[in-house]
Amino acid sequence: MSNAQPISRFSVPELKNLPEDIRATILAVQEKAGFVPNVFLTLAHRPDEFRAFFAYHDALMLKETGNLTKADREMIVTATSAKNDCLYCVVAHGALLRIYAKNPLVADQVAVNHLKADLTPRQRAMLDFAVKVCLDSAAIDEDDYASLHQHGFDDEDIWDIATITAFFGMSNRIANAIGIRPNEEFYLMGRLPRPK
Amino acid sequence: MSNAQPISRFSVPELKNLPEDIRATILAVQEKAGFVPNVFLTLAHRPDEFRAFFAYHDALMLKETGNLTKADREMIVTATSAKNDCLYCVVAHGALLRIYAKNPLVADQVAVNHLKADLTPRQRAMLDFAVKVCLDSAAIDEDDYASLHQHGFDDEDIWDIATITAFFGMSNRIANAIGIRPNEEFYLMGRLPRPK
Amino acid sequence: MSNAQPISRFSVPELKNLPEDIRATILAVQEKAGFVPNVFLTLAHRPDEFRAFFAYHDALMLKETGNLTKADREMIVTATSAKNDCLYCVVAHGALLRIYAKNPLVADQVAVNHLKADLTPRQRAMLDFAVKVCLDSAAIDEDDYASLHQHGFDDEDIWDIATITAFFGMSNRIANAIGIRPNEEFYLMGRLPRPK
Amino acid sequence: MSNAQPISRFSVPELKNLPEDIRATILAVQEKAGFVPNVFLTLAHRPDEFRAFFAYHDALMLKETGNLTKADREMIVTATSAKNDCLYCVVAHGALLRIYAKNPLVADQVAVNHLKADLTPRQRAMLDFAVKVCLDSAAIDEDDYASLHQHGFDDEDIWDIATITAFFGMSNRIANAIGIRPNEEFYLMGRLPRPK
Amino acid sequence: MSNAQPISRFSVPELKNLPEDIRATILAVQEKAGFVPNVFLTLAHRPDEFRAFFAYHDALMLKETGNLTKADREMIVTATSAKNDCLYCVVAHGALLRIYAKNPLVADQVAVNHLKADLTPRQRAMLDFAVKVCLDSAAIDEDDYASLHQHGFDDEDIWDIATITAFFGMSNRIANAIGIRPNEEFYLMGRLPRPK
Amino acid sequence: MSNAQPISRFSVPELKNLPEDIRATILAVQEKAGFVPNVFLTLAHRPDEFRAFFAYHDALMLKETGNLTKADREMIVTATSAKNDCLYCVVAHGALLRIYAKNPLVADQVAVNHLKADLTPRQRAMLDFAVKVCLDSAAIDEDDYASLHQHGFDDEDIWDIATITAFFGMSNRIANAIGIRPNEEFYLMGRLPRPK
Repeated sequence: MSNAQPISRFSVPELKNLPEDIRATILAVQEKAGFVPNVFLTLAHRPDEFRAFFAYHDALMLKETGNLTKADREMIVTATSAKNDCLYCVVAHGALLRIYAKNPLVADQVAVNHLKADLTPRQRAMLDFAVKVCLDSAAIDEDDYASLHQHGFDDEDIWDIATITAFFGMSNRIANAIGIRPNEEFYLMGRLPRPK
Repeated sequence: MSNAQPISRFSVPELKNLPEDIRATILAVQEKAGFVPNVFLTLAHRPDEFRAFFAYHDALMLKETGNLTKADREMIVTATSAKNDCLYCVVAHGALLRIYAKNPLVADQVAVNHLKADLTPRQRAMLDFAVKVCLDSAAIDEDDYASLHQHGFDDEDIWDIATITAFFGMSNRIANAIGIRPNEEFYLMGRLPRPK
Repeated sequence: MSNAQPISRFSVPELKNLPEDIRATILAVQEKAGFVPNVFLTLAHRPDEFRAFFAYHDALMLKETGNLTKADREMIVTATSAKNDCLYCVVAHGALLRIYAKNPLVADQVAVNHLKADLTPRQRAMLDFAVKVCLDSAAIDEDDYASLHQHGFDDEDIWDIATITAFFGMSNRIANAIGIRPNEEFYLMGRLPRPK
Repeated sequence: MSNAQPISRFSVPELKNLPEDIRATILAVQEKAGFVPNVFLTLAHRPDEFRAFFAYHDALMLKETGNLTKADREMIVTATSAKNDCLYCVVAHGALLRIYAKNPLVADQVAVNHLKADLTPRQRAMLDFAVKVCLDSAAIDEDDYASLHQHGFDDEDIWDIATITAFFGMSNRIANAIGIRPNEEFYLMGRLPRPK
Repeated sequence: MSNAQPISRFSVPELKNLPEDIRATILAVQEKAGFVPNVFLTLAHRPDEFRAFFAYHDALMLKETGNLTKADREMIVTATSAKNDCLYCVVAHGALLRIYAKNPLVADQVAVNHLKADLTPRQRAMLDFAVKVCLDSAAIDEDDYASLHQHGFDDEDIWDIATITAFFGMSNRIANAIGIRPNEEFYLMGRLPRPK
Repeated sequence: MSNAQPISRFSVPELKNLPEDIRATILAVQEKAGFVPNVFLTLAHRPDEFRAFFAYHDALMLKETGNLTKADREMIVTATSAKNDCLYCVVAHGALLRIYAKNPLVADQVAVNHLKADLTPRQRAMLDFAVKVCLDSAAIDEDDYASLHQHGFDDEDIWDIATITAFFGMSNRIANAIGIRPNEEFYLMGRLPRPK
């Protein structure tokens, strides 16, 4: 499937002109994913911002401690990015959610209406909180912490949910403002059973 | 003025227990400002996130290129943090705005209603765009770019306005969710004429 | 893919107990689609409402006159059902949109943010109007008609866009209130190239 | 009272040119009401839609089973049509509500603010649910069903409330988009004591 | 028509116990209107507030200068009170509007949706501005003044429109918060042709 | 600090041309405050409205009975004026709040987000109610009264909170619509310790 549409509103640097560390990061993700997600190419336009963005991303999304699974984290990203109407993040992180959750339906469900999705009560509480951080963070209070504690989340998990939501709220606004286009590969990822 | 209130909902690490680079950063800001803004102490709870957060912050706010002054940037932060009802950022960045703009009134003005503030048409256009990125980024389109071009902003400046707004939208949500309390020093900063 | 979840909050009648005309309709759609979309089984609980609902549906969606293609109509349904957060209609009509438009991307695009979708100016104007009918119909006025005229829509087409939006606004509320679950078959429909 | 204003933005067919069944329906309503409500003349522009609309309408509003009185149903229509700012439906169904409820005040009360209207707790619960279906159907859940059960509504009644609300949400959007003007007769109906 | 409902949530003083000037005001309005509107009895609970309220009211509504007719002023009150969902003011001032405008339809029209009411372009501009003052006064700017100037309103008229809207925005909030019930007499006033 | 900006969009009368009582009021406030708050000069353009406005203001704000302190009243004004984005009232009444509460921080706190301010539970309940009167008065009901009773407010206090909120909601709309500029003196008032 060829894609004649521009990747974003801004010019995308050529790989050979990028700083070595950024080129290495991009080649590594290409090696792993089979393609380069457009957010990498777009942010490479600003090397310092690229480095900080992905350092923050990795600290939150690749973190090995705490009680959030990778599927939990991508579920937070997909649900809240939908509230911000961010096409890039819903499509790209919806794909990752399908893969990590091994569930071809859940990404569309939480993107349209997490209240009607096939969720455990724990996931529902997690997304209720994330959506509140996304849309009305000024009203977060102790009652929100207490609700999450009842579902087995501790304070560190709550920090994680809040910060993942906040970080992708930033990504959503950047992607919307500079028009990052999702790679077409994402749309189908995780929808078909894995070949055995 | 003593402050018996906790800095945030999370425990604040002791300086001596922090990684060396983070301690150095904190001591440097204390040296320069005369106190340690609470966001430093709060985020030090998560060293990797601290490093990424301030690397991103510095890439956007200390950047030496482009047409945004430091006052412009703090004005964006103050106006959009007010839309997110973030006490920490309105108080702390309002202080910086008063100082950089050498104007004791402008921070309160843009925090309450930037439409009634004493702004140049260029500043007004800048804040109109920032507020749209803050509240309705999904609707940003070419007309917004064209409006800003008419006021002398180029595409790189627009990237800056959008990303500063997005970054502090993240900060606002983190500060609201984990309850970061503004240092009392900020409230009065920049309100009195400098002694000569 | 087995589906242990109930089809809706209400009991679903057995096919053999349905009135003859309703059974015939359901068997015909099963013959054509390979499965029975859950909205048929759910509404069969109320035969008179079933008959009126599908008579109205067919009058709008199978209409052979006017300038709206079948893809146009499904695009209206998908975009406005997303505004109403209706899981059933976004998933089911998104599938039909992909098939009629022969485009595996467009349904996800218009569901997340039609402003960033790959649309012609004519489609964009059509969806802008549909979204206004969906969210703020009280403000529709002559200017809206004039905008659509400029894109080649005549008054009869505008009636169609408005009424399709209104009809599915009804469907969205029914589906949300009685919890109609989308068939799993819809999620993947139209995403893969047709075998040749 | 003569009415020089057009009935709607669309041309209204002459009675003699209408299909026989539609002409008969219109003559019957004129016989009964003493005038032809404009929604009949407007929708007659599209005979198939006319037939489906009124079949659906009658299935919901003339239904003889269940626990909703005719006044209950018109109260739902009046309250939710007011939320959609639909002049035609508030005026026309407000008239019917006054007549069925034998109460000259209740229509204005529920149109302005059902929370301050003279309602029984059962009616208040019914309208709270209807307004939620009207404005935020995606959030309907089991708690809403439980609240209504406590007031003596069973699941079939809840289906009725939801579907009446949804159907008139459709009518409201059509009436707003094509500008159906309420007949002047409706404004005064049910406001005066019946002559004895 | 007897009215067993309380006039407001607060006790209503007996006429004989009121200060002389307030009793005189109330008797005068009863003489003129044939009944005492409940807002008089309710506010008499606080004599100083009663005096200031009606002094302000009369300065705005009985003013003999400027280009607003009495019908214009009541139209502003009815339209904006509807936005604030204030039953008392919509019912009471809708009655006055019908009488001053000699039009039995216009009050219901502007209460439900002033965009669909039978208005002159001048009245439409007046209400558009009033609704903006009611709902989003922070965004009023020179363009709003310019729009009104084009319809023949001068700056003093604009002061009147804004202040009438603001004053009744206050009344609406008081009436809603303390539950002032409209007198039943208002509902029918101005709906019937005057006997000749 | 000189102020070259106009006081409002309307011409400000010269003191010598004002009616005697209004001139006396203005001179008295100047004597007491050291300057004339711009709201006095602006409203003097309309003497009758000036008199009624300040009579109402004084009845509410200088009232000697009831359980609201002067700081409570200014806190209500500051918090609700911030919801209405009224620069004049947030700046002017924030100054009074700092002085009456002898607290240099509280005005900025309640203006940005009263939910994160240093408040007693009683003050929090008072502001929650005031904000509801400001933004959604139509939904006020007995539960709101009961909540306030639990914090020691009686019905008369609730009348005060509601009416103060309503009165300043009027002031906010007037100030926004006619562009009243806050005096620069207000910005710093109450921020510095009193000299002893």
